Amino acid sequence: MLENILRQVQNGSMSVEDATKQLAPFENLGFAKVDHHRKQRQGFPEIVYGENKTAEQIIGIARALQAQNNEVLITRITPDKAEAIQNVCPSYVYDNTSRLLYWKNSEQAGVDRKGYIAVIAAGTSDISVAEEAAVTAEVLGSKVHRFYDVGVAGIHRLLHHAEDIQQATVSVVVAGMEGALASVVGGLVAHPVIAVPTSVGYGASFNGLSALLTMLNSCASGISVVNIDNGFGGGYNAALIHQLIHRGNA
Amino acid sequence: MLENILRQVQNGSMSVEDATKQLAPFENLGFAKVDHHRKQRQGFPEIVYGENKTAEQIIGIARALQAQNNEVLITRITPDKAEAIQNVCPSYVYDNTSRLLYWKNSEQAGVDRKGYIAVIAAGTSDISVAEEAAVTAEVLGSKVHRFYDVGVAGIHRLLHHAEDIQQATVSVVVAGMEGALASVVGGLVAHPVIAVPTSVGYGASFNGLSALLTMLNSCASGISVVNIDNGFGGGYNAALIHQLIHRGNA
Amino acid sequence: MLENILRQVQNGSMSVEDATKQLAPFENLGFAKVDHHRKQRQGFPEIVYGENKTAEQIIGIARALQAQNNEVLITRITPDKAEAIQNVCPSYVYDNTSRLLYWKNSEQAGVDRKGYIAVIAAGTSDISVAEEAAVTAEVLGSKVHRFYDVGVAGIHRLLHHAEDIQQATVSVVVAGMEGALASVVGGLVAHPVIAVPTSVGYGASFNGLSALLTMLNSCASGISVVNIDNGFGGGYNAALIHQLIHRGNA
Amino acid sequence: MLENILRQVQNGSMSVEDATKQLAPFENLGFAKVDHHRKQRQGFPEIVYGENKTAEQIIGIARALQAQNNEVLITRITPDKAEAIQNVCPSYVYDNTSRLLYWKNSEQAGVDRKGYIAVIAAGTSDISVAEEAAVTAEVLGSKVHRFYDVGVAGIHRLLHHAEDIQQATVSVVVAGMEGALASVVGGLVAHPVIAVPTSVGYGASFNGLSALLTMLNSCASGISVVNIDNGFGGGYNAALIHQLIHRGNA
Amino acid sequence: MLENILRQVQNGSMSVEDATKQLAPFENLGFAKVDHHRKQRQGFPEIVYGENKTAEQIIGIARALQAQNNEVLITRITPDKAEAIQNVCPSYVYDNTSRLLYWKNSEQAGVDRKGYIAVIAAGTSDISVAEEAAVTAEVLGSKVHRFYDVGVAGIHRLLHHAEDIQQATVSVVVAGMEGALASVVGGLVAHPVIAVPTSVGYGASFNGLSALLTMLNSCASGISVVNIDNGFGGGYNAALIHQLIHRGNA
Amino acid sequence: MLENILRQVQNGSMSVEDATKQLAPFENLGFAKVDHHRKQRQGFPEIVYGENKTAEQIIGIARALQAQNNEVLITRITPDKAEAIQNVCPSYVYDNTSRLLYWKNSEQAGVDRKGYIAVIAAGTSDISVAEEAAVTAEVLGSKVHRFYDVGVAGIHRLLHHAEDIQQATVSVVVAGMEGALASVVGGLVAHPVIAVPTSVGYGASFNGLSALLTMLNSCASGISVVNIDNGFGGGYNAALIHQLIHRGNA
Amino acid sequence: MLENILRQVQNGSMSVEDATKQLAPFENLGFAKVDHHRKQRQGFPEIVYGENKTAEQIIGIARALQAQNNEVLITRITPDKAEAIQNVCPSYVYDNTSRLLYWKNSEQAGVDRKGYIAVIAAGTSDISVAEEAAVTAEVLGSKVHRFYDVGVAGIHRLLHHAEDIQQATVSVVVAGMEGALASVVGGLVAHPVIAVPTSVGYGASFNGLSALLTMLNSCASGISVVNIDNGFGGGYNAALIHQLIHRGNA
Amino acid sequence: MLENILRQVQNGSMSVEDATKQLAPFENLGFAKVDHHRKQRQGFPEIVYGENKTAEQIIGIARALQAQNNEVLITRITPDKAEAIQNVCPSYVYDNTSRLLYWKNSEQAGVDRKGYIAVIAAGTSDISVAEEAAVTAEVLGSKVHRFYDVGVAGIHRLLHHAEDIQQATVSVVVAGMEGALASVVGGLVAHPVIAVPTSVGYGASFNGLSALLTMLNSCASGISVVNIDNGFGGGYNAALIHQLIHRGNA
Repeated sequence: MLENILRQVQNGSMSVEDATKQLAPFENLGFAKVDHHRKQRQGFPEIVYGENKTAEQIIGIARALQAQNNEVLITRITPDKAEAIQNVCPSYVYDNTSRLLYWKNSEQAGVDRKGYIAVIAAGTSDISVAEEAAVTAEVLGSKVHRFYDVGVAGIHRLLHHAEDIQQATVSVVVAGMEGALASVVGGLVAHPVIAVPTSVGYGASFNGLSALLTMLNSCASGISVVNIDNGFGGGYNAALIHQLIHRGNA
Repeated sequence: MLENILRQVQNGSMSVEDATKQLAPFENLGFAKVDHHRKQRQGFPEIVYGENKTAEQIIGIARALQAQNNEVLITRITPDKAEAIQNVCPSYVYDNTSRLLYWKNSEQAGVDRKGYIAVIAAGTSDISVAEEAAVTAEVLGSKVHRFYDVGVAGIHRLLHHAEDIQQATVSVVVAGMEGALASVVGGLVAHPVIAVPTSVGYGASFNGLSALLTMLNSCASGISVVNIDNGFGGGYNAALIHQLIHRGNA
Repeated sequence: MLENILRQVQNGSMSVEDATKQLAPFENLGFAKVDHHRKQRQGFPEIVYGENKTAEQIIGIARALQAQNNEVLITRITPDKAEAIQNVCPSYVYDNTSRLLYWKNSEQAGVDRKGYIAVIAAGTSDISVAEEAAVTAEVLGSKVHRFYDVGVAGIHRLLHHAEDIQQATVSVVVAGMEGALASVVGGLVAHPVIAVPTSVGYGASFNGLSALLTMLNSCASGISVVNIDNGFGGGYNAALIHQLIHRGNA
Repeated sequence: MLENILRQVQNGSMSVEDATKQLAPFENLGFAKVDHHRKQRQGFPEIVYGENKTAEQIIGIARALQAQNNEVLITRITPDKAEAIQNVCPSYVYDNTSRLLYWKNSEQAGVDRKGYIAVIAAGTSDISVAEEAAVTAEVLGSKVHRFYDVGVAGIHRLLHHAEDIQQATVSVVVAGMEGALASVVGGLVAHPVIAVPTSVGYGASFNGLSALLTMLNSCASGISVVNIDNGFGGGYNAALIHQLIHRGNA
Repeated sequence: MLENILRQVQNGSMSVEDATKQLAPFENLGFAKVDHHRKQRQGFPEIVYGENKTAEQIIGIARALQAQNNEVLITRITPDKAEAIQNVCPSYVYDNTSRLLYWKNSEQAGVDRKGYIAVIAAGTSDISVAEEAAVTAEVLGSKVHRFYDVGVAGIHRLLHHAEDIQQATVSVVVAGMEGALASVVGGLVAHPVIAVPTSVGYGASFNGLSALLTMLNSCASGISVVNIDNGFGGGYNAALIHQLIHRGNA
Repeated sequence: MLENILRQVQNGSMSVEDATKQLAPFENLGFAKVDHHRKQRQGFPEIVYGENKTAEQIIGIARALQAQNNEVLITRITPDKAEAIQNVCPSYVYDNTSRLLYWKNSEQAGVDRKGYIAVIAAGTSDISVAEEAAVTAEVLGSKVHRFYDVGVAGIHRLLHHAEDIQQATVSVVVAGMEGALASVVGGLVAHPVIAVPTSVGYGASFNGLSALLTMLNSCASGISVVNIDNGFGGGYNAALIHQLIHRGNA
Repeated sequence: MLENILRQVQNGSMSVEDATKQLAPFENLGFAKVDHHRKQRQGFPEIVYGENKTAEQIIGIARALQAQNNEVLITRITPDKAEAIQNVCPSYVYDNTSRLLYWKNSEQAGVDRKGYIAVIAAGTSDISVAEEAAVTAEVLGSKVHRFYDVGVAGIHRLLHHAEDIQQATVSVVVAGMEGALASVVGGLVAHPVIAVPTSVGYGASFNGLSALLTMLNSCASGISVVNIDNGFGGGYNAALIHQLIHRGNA
Repeated sequence: MLENILRQVQNGSMSVEDATKQLAPFENLGFAKVDHHRKQRQGFPEIVYGENKTAEQIIGIARALQAQNNEVLITRITPDKAEAIQNVCPSYVYDNTSRLLYWKNSEQAGVDRKGYIAVIAAGTSDISVAEEAAVTAEVLGSKVHRFYDVGVAGIHRLLHHAEDIQQATVSVVVAGMEGALASVVGGLVAHPVIAVPTSVGYGASFNGLSALLTMLNSCASGISVVNIDNGFGGGYNAALIHQLIHRGNA
């Protein structure tokens, strides 16, 4: 490709200015381009990690994104910060449980992607992280089926939903305490499982370390793990796989 | 009781020598006596932790115990050490899988205690620890049903045995890697579960830490935990509970 | 049993509807049934982990349980949350020290089970966890004898109560800091000991890790361990063993 | 489905024996069936974790699998054990670098699945784990492109291959020491990245903990992590996603 | 001694009541007696760990101690709690820096013990822990010389005081961050060094773990270590050694 | 030198008083002198760790330093404490982002040292630590170029600045989460890199441990590491190296 | 003192050469002198940490020490290395259990110091560390009483020896596993206790971490701790305190 | 620069081939060029991490390097591997203590750089790591002064060399166990200190963690840290700084 551009410059079919743009340091590597293409191709909005940013910083980024008609998804926003941002960006939606703030371009017709993601949570205390996964996946264009409070201490609760879970395209399993749910789900399904350990628990849960280790050591195949309480990561990975499998609504 | 003895001394019905024996420092506390009574009452043999003892030390202890017609159970004995001891104590039985060495007094008629202990192991690699639990419980007079290779990654293998496990008096669950089996069993049964984490695994299993934390954080009630690879502890606790529940063969 | 039901369907002695109910996925496995039977058979109330539930969620669960005339035990309830719940459920009892909220069906005549559980606490700072164990066991129908402030740094305080502790059916040992009490009690008694490490301490206690490791490594036999500060787990395990040993008030 | 079967039994179109088979405890749950179907549908062989199994145990399992004409993949086999097994199963292939032993049914025509998996390794020391991922994926029917020795300390080595990596369907990134490669790759591609930390390193790498934490904390989206040195897990997850995206050779 | 008492009972020179008192369970063991003697012999007050006790509990204990004219030392008292106690016990002294609350019997003439304890603190941030050590030792009757802000990053500050430190009877070294001061002092003196790590620091000090490990691994002989921030332990150990060396004011 | 002074005393060319001053314990060792000379020679102000000092303590130290016309740099000062100090020392400058408080002697003409330090931060959340490094280096007389928000998840952002970073004399790399930026920068430049891990992140970042381990295990040469969040240390080390390389404005 | 020497130089009563020697860098500080005096005054031999030294290095050091008629104590010597050294230094004594190699100057009449050190070991596996403490103390001139196999799981074994232990001048408590013995001994005695954790144990003992934490968190006063398996440190500290208390055979 | 090249292509002064080479992906970024220039400009040889490479792999790399007349430095080579390589590359020098294997181009006249690096080791056991630092720096063209066995437990040994250490351009401090030496040296000198923790020690040294934490938490300014046992890193960093300060032999 490089030689191509150079030949065009040589024979005058491309101006130095245009070639400079295409060959500017990181454009030359291709990844910035890919970055742009990805959004158009995949309909994935720009993700902003909101935890350590001020409302002002977020508003600045949000306006820039909206100017390009891009969707916006901001994670880990407190209600107060959400309110401050919504005062300026009233079309933004804030979800209390998942602490996500997002804006979807209403002009972009909803994707009607086949299949769904199963978001499975062990206990009621894991629901806020599970919702971060679920809403993330939904904003990214996936359908989500929620299976909450199906922890392994009452295995029949999970088994009752086994068929629905098995028919999902990909599962996100959210669990704190001993985090055993991921292994059991992993053994039940033939699709990828993204495991999200949570910091729910006390004492020897060591703020989620217990669930994290459990999931990393799972004897079931097809499980991979994201950071403790990283519901966003769970939802993003699931949506990424989901849309690759069912792109073109196939 | 103290006053009683003193009154007997005062009125001459007990000699100073006899009173001295009964009131000697730790006899006065009762625990040494209890120690003796425990063996007679419960048929529990003396347990010797064999790992850091020489064959000579163990032979010495074993002879003293046999002299009192007591049963003997020695843990963590290598085949070499077992052979050295058996040369001197040919009636001792060595179990290769559990690395236990023991001697049962043939004169003591076998207890025909009701009920059984379920020893449940997640994978084939956990079997040596599971056998340490099982053989310990058997030497201590309990019947044992073994359920091996029933890890949670194929939950149907466990569920297939659910009824047999539920009818046990107490369960010992042995699992390495993510150790999730304890929670699932704990949710299935209405009896006490002794969980034994094992060091089976690699990487983030951190030599059994993962399974240990899983079991300590179990969301199922009725589970308590012993040290990593402590099959003996699992079997001992189970047998202790079992024989208290079914003493008098009830 | 399955074949039995099928034959009844075949010969018309059971309707398809009734068979469906009995053979529905997890009923077929037996654990849901067992779950129901367990309460009737054992008089054990449903346990609700209250820490991450809202007052509204708890009220909902509580009403459902009371509707079935079941007893209710909710753990880790703050005074504020307790008050909010009691406004709606005035018959509920709240225990400040143990932070337990419970309701006992007055119609169910109190069990007069033989024997008692010894709840033993090392220091005054461990008392709230010890009370969680003690009240849990009491709500579950066991008698409890309390032995508080008997830490090993003044071993005579413990030895003074040795006989009373030895006559218990099962002991719960609650200790923070170095947690050595479990080993000493374990060496004194011939019954099962449930050890509960607490987060009492500072510096190298690492929020209870020190006591937890101590208890897991105990050189005394017959000790098993629950999570740090898990007084409920200690009381539940003890009550479970106690009622199995003394069921039928024997 | 259950009601369906029962109606057939009722109207005599299904024998009690056949219904019993289909409704036997865990068949009723559906997962065992799924298990069977999965192999036929996906061409995935049975995976055997070889580390703690004897040659004899493995030969037993292998014969059973071959009897059903199933492919076989056994992980973590030492050369000695491989030789012992190959003496009995001469058609088995052993790969020295990845320590995998496998048998592919020659009758099953090779899948010609579209796309490929990029297996990317940071250093030469990570190659054995990378090969475990690559060969696993290949045995499971995926094409693999290898990119080795492209660690971040010489970022141009990685960027040189950026385009080839970006065109993969899924990437497996294998790295020890600081494990930073996963984040850089994650930022370059628009497909899922499975990160495999390795125990390569010394001192504060703490046997792979450093690389594991790096990967779990990645600021790049679309990364999920498996256990330290779990090349198999990396390859399995990648192949699972790959074949779901390109099933039907699409 | 036991036989002696019994003979007196036998010959009537001691009443059963008096013998009962002396032979009551734990009196018979001798440690409770020793406990009493220790206070009289050593002038050591009763120590109360104040952190988890209410003001009411402490007032109760304090009154009981004062009733016996015993000195009182209570550790880890917040200013608020101190004020509440002083309202009831106005003769109690509260030291803000060390958070110690104590009462010294004015009738007991001050000991004029030879020698002194060197309390050495690395930085100004370590002073509150150092003062807990120093005041503890003073309340226990030792003279204390303070050497503060003599951390190893400016070794001349310490060396300037080398002679004074060398002439102490025992040293208490208090240091956070890297805690290196203990080793340097240990290499300078020929008397015992009690090392007290503090939680001063941030990041990789891990709340005092760094200083604790440093002190435990000291290459200097004659150093022993107490818990993180345990100024009391440092002062108590030092005073105990000091008064044994210089008892009888020698 | 010592012999020299003594000869001068012997021949009367130096008074005993003057010799005493020069030979006083730690002066004799030379390091205190060096300490003085260092400030004059290097223009480095005295550094005060402000975190655990009261405003009063800091004012006292500051006045002493100013009395000698020395510059002052105080780290980790909260806005409140800064205000209290500035009330007394109005010429002091407080920087909100870096929490540094400092005073530069206006009489000392600014150094016009060649070259600059590159302060590179991975994310916006790392900026406060990065600013502590940058302002520290500036107060110590170095020019600083800032490169913020150039984390590895979008490697082109960093590469865009590669040339500017390569031309720096020394780099300070500030990164939290996985901390991978240090390795990438280390591979791009031929000058020393001081890596500063930050506590930015959540879950398995374990308050900066993840970034710390990453940086310690870097496969790039020329990287050394300071404590978590120790921006001051990063800036100080960089300025020290910078001024040694470009002393005499060369 | 400095001024004194200078005045002597000034008035000619001391030569420049003599003053130079006395004022040479570290002589001027006094610690090197003290170092020499310490040996003569205390009769303490030079201690050599043998673990990482070759036989040749040790022989070199040993000869230098013997040349000055100093006693020699070398720790952590394997039998092989001991034999190699004894071939050259036949008068050296090697103790197999403690792995100590030492040489005592036969001309120096044995000290007949009052009192004794109690070396107390929990289990038989702790004896090698306990012997390192005991023999170290003996080589340093103290009498030692050994109390072995008195772990807390059979508290009466310890209490049986309570009086003998209480009459010691100082105690060294050696324990692995849960390490609880230190707290119990600390509560029984009125003298300093040096606690030595050992690496005896398995699983969650984490190579002695469990015992170390137990001892650091002891609720008993008067306990200080040395490194894991540091029997030498325990013996040295005890002997140091012992000889300071009973110097002059008092 | 990019525009420049393009203009040359446009006006025909540069061929497409030449422009392609200069603008090829990573050449365009400039770092590969820098990489080449660095060697010529700095005389730094290529570094090979030898630990996980076979003799064959190393010989291959070595020959390629020698073909370009580049110097070679290979770390962590066992004597066996060194011998195998030397059989093929007889001009290579192997250093037993540091386990370094290197080849210096004899045609390149030795640099006579001003100043020297101080390599300071705490104990004799740290010497192999210290030598890895020292020989690395020497191969990279720096003069090295060694100061060994100057640990802080005998501070006078270090102070005796204070002046020589202070006059170095940069110091490398190598220490295991408590690692306190880095802080003391850091407080003595006005130049950068590279601290290298070693794994020397036992018990709570946790394989170098103790020394690592000590060095990271140093209260002395001007210290930065490399990985445990990373003598190479210490030497490389020091040589890098040294040659930047004294380039042009200034």
